[in-house]
Amino acid sequence: MFGLMMDTPLTLAPLLERAARLFPKKEIASRYGSSVFRYTIRDFHARVHRLAHVVASLGIREGDRVGTLCWNSHRHLELYWAVPCLGAVLHPLNLRLADDQLAYIINHAGDRVIFADASLMPVLERLKGQIPCVERIIVLPDETYEGPELDYEAALAAAPDTRYSWPEIDERAAFGTCYTSGTTGNPKAVWYTHRGMYLHTMMLAQQDTFGICERDVIFQMVPMFHANGWGFPYAAVAMGSKLVLSGRSLQPAGIGSAIEQERVTFTFGVPTLWMQLLAYLDQHPTDISSLRCVLAAGSATPRALVEQYGEKYGLEFRLGWGMSETSPMATVMRFKSHMDDLPAKEKYDFRARHGLPAPGVELRILGDDGAEVPWDGATMGELQVRGPWITSGYYDDPRPAEQAAPESFQDGWFRTGDVATVDAEGYIQIMDRTKDLVKSGGEWISSVDLENAIMAHPKVMEAAVIAVPHPKWQERPLACVVPRPGETVTKEEILEHLSGRVAKWWLPDDVVVIDAVPKTSVGKFNKRALRARFSGT
Amino acid sequence: MFGLMMDTPLTLAPLLERAARLFPKKEIASRYGSSVFRYTIRDFHARVHRLAHVVASLGIREGDRVGTLCWNSHRHLELYWAVPCLGAVLHPLNLRLADDQLAYIINHAGDRVIFADASLMPVLERLKGQIPCVERIIVLPDETYEGPELDYEAALAAAPDTRYSWPEIDERAAFGTCYTSGTTGNPKAVWYTHRGMYLHTMMLAQQDTFGICERDVIFQMVPMFHANGWGFPYAAVAMGSKLVLSGRSLQPAGIGSAIEQERVTFTFGVPTLWMQLLAYLDQHPTDISSLRCVLAAGSATPRALVEQYGEKYGLEFRLGWGMSETSPMATVMRFKSHMDDLPAKEKYDFRARHGLPAPGVELRILGDDGAEVPWDGATMGELQVRGPWITSGYYDDPRPAEQAAPESFQDGWFRTGDVATVDAEGYIQIMDRTKDLVKSGGEWISSVDLENAIMAHPKVMEAAVIAVPHPKWQERPLACVVPRPGETVTKEEILEHLSGRVAKWWLPDDVVVIDAVPKTSVGKFNKRALRARFSGT
Repeated sequence: MFGLMMDTPLTLAPLLERAARLFPKKEIASRYGSSVFRYTIRDFHARVHRLAHVVASLGIREGDRVGTLCWNSHRHLELYWAVPCLGAVLHPLNLRLADDQLAYIINHAGDRVIFADASLMPVLERLKGQIPCVERIIVLPDETYEGPELDYEAALAAAPDTRYSWPEIDERAAFGTCYTSGTTGNPKAVWYTHRGMYLHTMMLAQQDTFGICERDVIFQMVPMFHANGWGFPYAAVAMGSKLVLSGRSLQPAGIGSAIEQERVTFTFGVPTLWMQLLAYLDQHPTDISSLRCVLAAGSATPRALVEQYGEKYGLEFRLGWGMSETSPMATVMRFKSHMDDLPAKEKYDFRARHGLPAPGVELRILGDDGAEVPWDGATMGELQVRGPWITSGYYDDPRPAEQAAPESFQDGWFRTGDVATVDAEGYIQIMDRTKDLVKSGGEWISSVDLENAIMAHPKVMEAAVIAVPHPKWQERPLACVVPRPGETVTKEEILEHLSGRVAKWWLPDDVVVIDAVPKTSVGKFNKRALRARFSGT
Repeated sequence: MFGLMMDTPLTLAPLLERAARLFPKKEIASRYGSSVFRYTIRDFHARVHRLAHVVASLGIREGDRVGTLCWNSHRHLELYWAVPCLGAVLHPLNLRLADDQLAYIINHAGDRVIFADASLMPVLERLKGQIPCVERIIVLPDETYEGPELDYEAALAAAPDTRYSWPEIDERAAFGTCYTSGTTGNPKAVWYTHRGMYLHTMMLAQQDTFGICERDVIFQMVPMFHANGWGFPYAAVAMGSKLVLSGRSLQPAGIGSAIEQERVTFTFGVPTLWMQLLAYLDQHPTDISSLRCVLAAGSATPRALVEQYGEKYGLEFRLGWGMSETSPMATVMRFKSHMDDLPAKEKYDFRARHGLPAPGVELRILGDDGAEVPWDGATMGELQVRGPWITSGYYDDPRPAEQAAPESFQDGWFRTGDVATVDAEGYIQIMDRTKDLVKSGGEWISSVDLENAIMAHPKVMEAAVIAVPHPKWQERPLACVVPRPGETVTKEEILEHLSGRVAKWWLPDDVVVIDAVPKTSVGKFNKRALRARFSGT
């Protein structure tokens, strides 16, 4: 029997309108180079409505795809909101992809128009002729742009200065799409729903996740093209936080100065970024005391990193886990109250885990036998998740999800491809990507665990462990180590450091010193590149 | 075009299972008399499943109504979860209603079974023969109960010790019903949905509302039969908070000792209760320092009360507003960050307002001309709301809501019957119930504003203002004043105190001193009773 509550759809437009109504004076700061553009949510809101008129005038209708090829900026934020609110599908393009991959995803999504930063127009020039679906390119100009394409600012200036009448949208409608950075085969399209992002936004505002709130100053340094910018471009506006957008720079000096100058209270990024920032902070004193906590996610975060930030800067890391297919935030590490009195060392044991499922997300870890693994913090299994912001299938495959992608779906659960443990408190720890595990003599070695142990060495900045083929054991670990600036480090030092820290049979067969760990387009360790270089696989 | 996220229904059972999985060791404390019963969420969860077996064995199917006539206890909490999770509709009966009203709502809802505290069995005895729909009564026993009815504990002990298999429930299904305490005509049935309460729960956990979280100790002293207990019996369990249930006592001494002994961090109640507690605390020093904030709602909260708690106890009041039809929380008062530096006096001006709409709720205030009133903090109009946990109609009326109850619905908005203002920051302030306004010479006088001004007098404990008929002005205000214990107060003192505080034409025509303001069944000022006594209307 149905209840009698209003059938209000969970869509994004009401969140935008709420922000404009309740928090019109809050600031949005958009950094570019050494300059900062500032305006208020009131101005932002007015421009989003103008932009909606522009997008509609280009013939974009509900369900049409609109690409963006942009750095983090206020204009990108305008697109982030205007395109979904008018019922179209936002497709933020990963500007670090290779040309053929970019062309593939533009064609696969069927982007009818693309909004591009002037500085990125050379990328689109190179794709000319390969993306026939694109009818129009609109350029977000810089000081020097003088191209032939429609100018974003000119279009906005010419648009009606009236409210765009947002259509009534089904909450299950797609509002955006991101492509997985798929390390094998073509990228796959995740199609996000209004309902999913609405619920994800409400979740990010909860006390036991990240508590995003009006008094926050949120620094968006994760690229907005990476998995919805982790959801914070929506949460920050919806909750009336001040939002600081990073521009194109992700250098440690720029990050440090943004935190210091804007009095940032919360930010988030991949571990490699936090490593680089730590090295920078050690040499360039910077006031980061305004941060109330930060989120590290996207790949494994070394415990040593969490500990160093804690010890040196009193900064609380809140690790989390997610992926493009999970909108992306699915777990977050928070202490339970009964753990308050644990010794500091034990606390760091927990701080380096990936936490509990966010309210709304369910997870399970299945062992080889198909049963849930014991909650012992040791037994590894495949992490599976479900919930209203977890993908149910990939776009453009007519088969049911579990037939089309049995490697990704099982009994209504999404198979993450991550291997994890769960401890007695229910905290999960991601041990590895299935494909990055070292399978040695029928047992698994977690490359992530080994990396963490190595990165605890004071002379080491970064370390990546890959599997190399072995005639007897099938695979054995190889450690690739990057010393801190000005330091040198030897194989013997690393192996000695590891003795006693990991099981003897986990010790790498070899240690090579390299200049830098190659990174993927979103800043994660690119182990595929390392394997190509060192193991020939 | 639909997106591709999982179609996970927003229902209550997953929240229960999450709590049992992640927070099994958290305590639930149920007070009765001077004793406390304690168990863990693990035990609670096991008993909820047993209870579900019991309820199903009584022939209760999805959509059937199950009444409860209970004080706040762990058993009532078990019913709160078991009944909705198995798809039936929980109907908590207001045990303070008159017999004829109780019989009316039991029959109107069609309750098939009723779970009743042994101490409340005399109420049901009196209704014998008047509630033919009720097939079975189950008694929650006390030490002395020896009646003929099925014993709750015996039934649980005999039930299978296995998990009940929760059905898949449509998120729009009814999970519960509460009746408005309708001061005119028969009570009306609000039918709550799983979806609405799920979203309400997620809202209560947000940083900018009440931030309900795992480390909270929530004291449930609002009766659980009152508007879903304001939603906290769901939010506390879902977030893994420790929950303290008040038993039947709502005396200030019991409240004070519960806060002190259990180290309560958050609680909530109607203003009259806070007034009584303040008088108690002034004479019985009690450690309430564990409270991080409290919520006052349900009727107008005098500014003087908020100020006294702040000044004397450093306690932050977070006023809110809601009603049975809004599940119930719809607004909450939080400072915006730019207001941090306001002088203390001005801060209290804001603290005594009812705040901003909670994320998910939209509101508007319409003047006589049908347009939104200006945001000037002065112009009064009718408050209207909409959102996924706002009622769309009342049960058992076949006509569309706006035809069946035009006084309650307009263009998809719920008409609250409250008169409010909104200030330049968007904070609303409830000025009065429409029917409690004093209509004097074509102008409105807010009875609530007058009461607040009177209650700021140091000798006054409570004050209620009602309209009395006037031959020339149509209506004029009459003030009914209750002095603090041991104090006396005169008409002249009150009028002198009001001079300069309110407009001259607002001054009451008369002031009468009474022993106590009569209260409704949920502890609000009963102005109907006062009008019957003093104005003959």
